[in-house]
Amino acid sequence: MNKSTLIEQIKLKKSFLCIGLDTDIQKIPAFLYDFEDPIFEFNKRIIEATKDFCVAYKPNIAFYESRGAKGWLSLQKTMDLIPSNIFTIADAKRGDIGNTSSLYARAFFDKAESGFSFDSVTVAPYMGSDSVSPFLTYPNKWVILLALTSNEGAADFQMIEDTQGKTLYQNVLINSQNWGNDENMMYVVGATRPEYFADIRKYTPNHFYLVPGVGAQGGSLEEVCKYGMNDEVGLLINSSRAIIYASSEENFAERAAEEAQKVQREMQAILELKGLI
Amino acid sequence: MNKSTLIEQIKLKKSFLCIGLDTDIQKIPAFLYDFEDPIFEFNKRIIEATKDFCVAYKPNIAFYESRGAKGWLSLQKTMDLIPSNIFTIADAKRGDIGNTSSLYARAFFDKAESGFSFDSVTVAPYMGSDSVSPFLTYPNKWVILLALTSNEGAADFQMIEDTQGKTLYQNVLINSQNWGNDENMMYVVGATRPEYFADIRKYTPNHFYLVPGVGAQGGSLEEVCKYGMNDEVGLLINSSRAIIYASSEENFAERAAEEAQKVQREMQAILELKGLI
Repeated sequence: MNKSTLIEQIKLKKSFLCIGLDTDIQKIPAFLYDFEDPIFEFNKRIIEATKDFCVAYKPNIAFYESRGAKGWLSLQKTMDLIPSNIFTIADAKRGDIGNTSSLYARAFFDKAESGFSFDSVTVAPYMGSDSVSPFLTYPNKWVILLALTSNEGAADFQMIEDTQGKTLYQNVLINSQNWGNDENMMYVVGATRPEYFADIRKYTPNHFYLVPGVGAQGGSLEEVCKYGMNDEVGLLINSSRAIIYASSEENFAERAAEEAQKVQREMQAILELKGLI
Repeated sequence: MNKSTLIEQIKLKKSFLCIGLDTDIQKIPAFLYDFEDPIFEFNKRIIEATKDFCVAYKPNIAFYESRGAKGWLSLQKTMDLIPSNIFTIADAKRGDIGNTSSLYARAFFDKAESGFSFDSVTVAPYMGSDSVSPFLTYPNKWVILLALTSNEGAADFQMIEDTQGKTLYQNVLINSQNWGNDENMMYVVGATRPEYFADIRKYTPNHFYLVPGVGAQGGSLEEVCKYGMNDEVGLLINSSRAIIYASSEENFAERAAEEAQKVQREMQAILELKGLI
């Protein structure tokens, strides 16, 4: 999906919500265990119930990988039923030397080889340019590069200042613009640090950000939008647990839809207030 | 596998060679395509032919993942036939927020859940402490943390100096010692920069390093040992392409064995010279 289609979808749905499919066999309602593939069954019902309220789905690959080959099969079936007007994110945090990153790109982008054709993949920047560039050779596919993450450990390295007064996450924003642009690269910026969004926007005024940390991790939607939104919206706000695990009963999909719609309405109000719709 | 067993195996085999199972469907001999699972068939013959000359195998997970669920099945069958006295490394470069890293740990360490019980996994440090710690809760399992990698892009961020004069890779070495120790943590240090080994040893005198970059990437075994070896050996030197793709003919496994033995003999000479065997 290209940038203009993504923006179009946001305006059409009045939503910039991304739903995280962090599907954990230990957390899904017990009645689903009777199905052949409970993980897929859960995802199918979540997607059917929430697809009008979000513009993106983000399966966290760890949840599928932790089940070995059968987890990858559940993921493949899940991806095959997501409508093509919804942006898909493989939250995989991959990154390796060039020839290896080419294979990770094949894993997530090349359906003929791997069975998957995600619109985007999250990538860790530690290994630098040649670990990221191979993902950028696919037309209309995106790298979502880790910049400032939402977890406690983010401070360990991402906040270290260099001799020019630039932090590591700022250096990631600056250097990576030599590799990609706002049509094929986004950044992960955690919602738990809304005050940093203004600084990050200075370096990347036109880029989209994928924002985890709203919901279970405690970040505020209003604060993130106040500092992070640009005139093309520029934000995909992710919520996982607060939506998909809103209920552990038979009504889990309806409850997920209610929670997703609640967020969508908050987003609509913000978009209207900013004059973006 | 614990550290003393690993050192015992090195002394027994007179080798600190790790063979990288970067098995690419496009590079294996064509006659293997007649088998049901050509990737597994290739790995089986490589392992049977080389297992006396190495102490570790390191499948590069990207090569399997790029083939989707069937790639994970090939990997699982491969791992099941590696003898238990050989150290196994999932070269996966994973790392995410704490609850997600726990699932990656399950993916590579918890056989009952995922089908895999690797001895170790490579982890990217960008997200800090809570992205690494979950891997350290498994007894006799190891994190192999990226420090200074062998690729060109390594210079983009790993060499950035902070206001105290410490580079990012040095900060990784220093901070990570609060999370693990030389009994459950190793570091990835690329062979293409042998002059840095002396510096890295200052911070981590007792740790093992996993050293990629000897062979196809151009690093020198002698140089790495000169600066990087300690009195417990402290090195696992990886070679992938130069061994497993020594021949693309029917004799590929014999040729791989010859190349592996050649490296083993060089290693034996170094170990004898240093008085370690």
